[in-house]
Amino acid sequence: MISDPISIEFYEYFPIWNQLTPRQQEKVAAKISFHTVKKGTMLHSGMDCTGLLLIRTGQLRAFILSREGREVTIYRLFDRDICLFSAPCVLHSIQFDVTIMAEKDTELWVIPADVYKQLMEQSAVVSNYTNEIMASRFSEVMWLMEQIMWHSMDKRVASFLLEEAAIENTSLLHITHESIANHLGTHREVVTRMLRYFQSEGMTKLSRGTVELTDMTKLKILSGT
Amino acid sequence: MISDPISIEFYEYFPIWNQLTPRQQEKVAAKISFHTVKKGTMLHSGMDCTGLLLIRTGQLRAFILSREGREVTIYRLFDRDICLFSAPCVLHSIQFDVTIMAEKDTELWVIPADVYKQLMEQSAVVSNYTNEIMASRFSEVMWLMEQIMWHSMDKRVASFLLEEAAIENTSLLHITHESIANHLGTHREVVTRMLRYFQSEGMTKLSRGTVELTDMTKLKILSGT
Repeated sequence: MISDPISIEFYEYFPIWNQLTPRQQEKVAAKISFHTVKKGTMLHSGMDCTGLLLIRTGQLRAFILSREGREVTIYRLFDRDICLFSAPCVLHSIQFDVTIMAEKDTELWVIPADVYKQLMEQSAVVSNYTNEIMASRFSEVMWLMEQIMWHSMDKRVASFLLEEAAIENTSLLHITHESIANHLGTHREVVTRMLRYFQSEGMTKLSRGTVELTDMTKLKILSGT
Repeated sequence: MISDPISIEFYEYFPIWNQLTPRQQEKVAAKISFHTVKKGTMLHSGMDCTGLLLIRTGQLRAFILSREGREVTIYRLFDRDICLFSAPCVLHSIQFDVTIMAEKDTELWVIPADVYKQLMEQSAVVSNYTNEIMASRFSEVMWLMEQIMWHSMDKRVASFLLEEAAIENTSLLHITHESIANHLGTHREVVTRMLRYFQSEGMTKLSRGTVELTDMTKLKILSGT
């Protein structure tokens, strides 16, 4: 068993560690690797089978890309979250491409896909844990689908700004209109128009590279949350 | 072990039957039930935990509903398919509502949720099988998401008509504009306008209650498939 401090920490971050057999623990411990990646690093794209990513600290963004390079964020991952779709080869039926990028400087462990796949085949605990991860991402995607289908863009921009403010714990967001558009799968012009409308209603204050939320209550009412 | 002909057939339709232990087989056999439902029957809605549905023959439609009653089809199930989301209680992390309706007269078996949940906890085979079902539905939802985000409504209507023609094995579809709109999550007027445009281009011929596909090649080119 590897016993450097960072591996010992893995045992605490990986929620089903104590439910693995000693032999399985040994195998995982021997194969995981720890990495520090800079904000903006592309961690996974297409059907590469990079491995499962377990986040120690930081933030990842999962998005889909159109042929023309348009983007839409499907979910984000934070401390202690695990990224399954960076290892699509662990399940035959995963037939879609997700791109994973570090949205902040991030420290993470990689569990190689073949090691995890073998664990899943042996252990109902690991397999059920995988089911829960997937169901949880599925729920996020279904939430997004409902947003896209039934909610107008003004509500979606308002929700996004509130979510960002909650993640960053500030009402002054350092974010470009382009980046908001890429999260929501729309064009920059649409976002700019919307933010200007919000500004005229006293809900935001716009400066170069920042959006300040000046009336959270009004934004919350608009977003319907 | 129950040995009536319809139960014996279940053993053949349930793909992992032979990988269950005799005791597990006995438990499942004692608890499954066989049902025949008419077209239009609502089989599941919201967070009810109806159980897993295994289709012998027929067709089910899974869709989401807006508060205003708008619909969008997320996937369909055919002979030998299994419906997992009619048993959301088998996984804590399923946090979304899907409605399941019979789109044709359907014969199916119901596996009670508690029986299946217990199997999943005991057996890595069952749990991995569940993972594959979920990944497969997830792939369909991601495909739909890409359609909605990147494809215009003309492409989506063309794809839908071609898919229907393939399912029904005919170019003369008995379907209303309202029903097409409910599959695609749009308004009837949008569909009517599109079909009239397709008709003016020689791709469809419209009559009361039917849409005939008169130029498959042109529709295929339009749909981008």
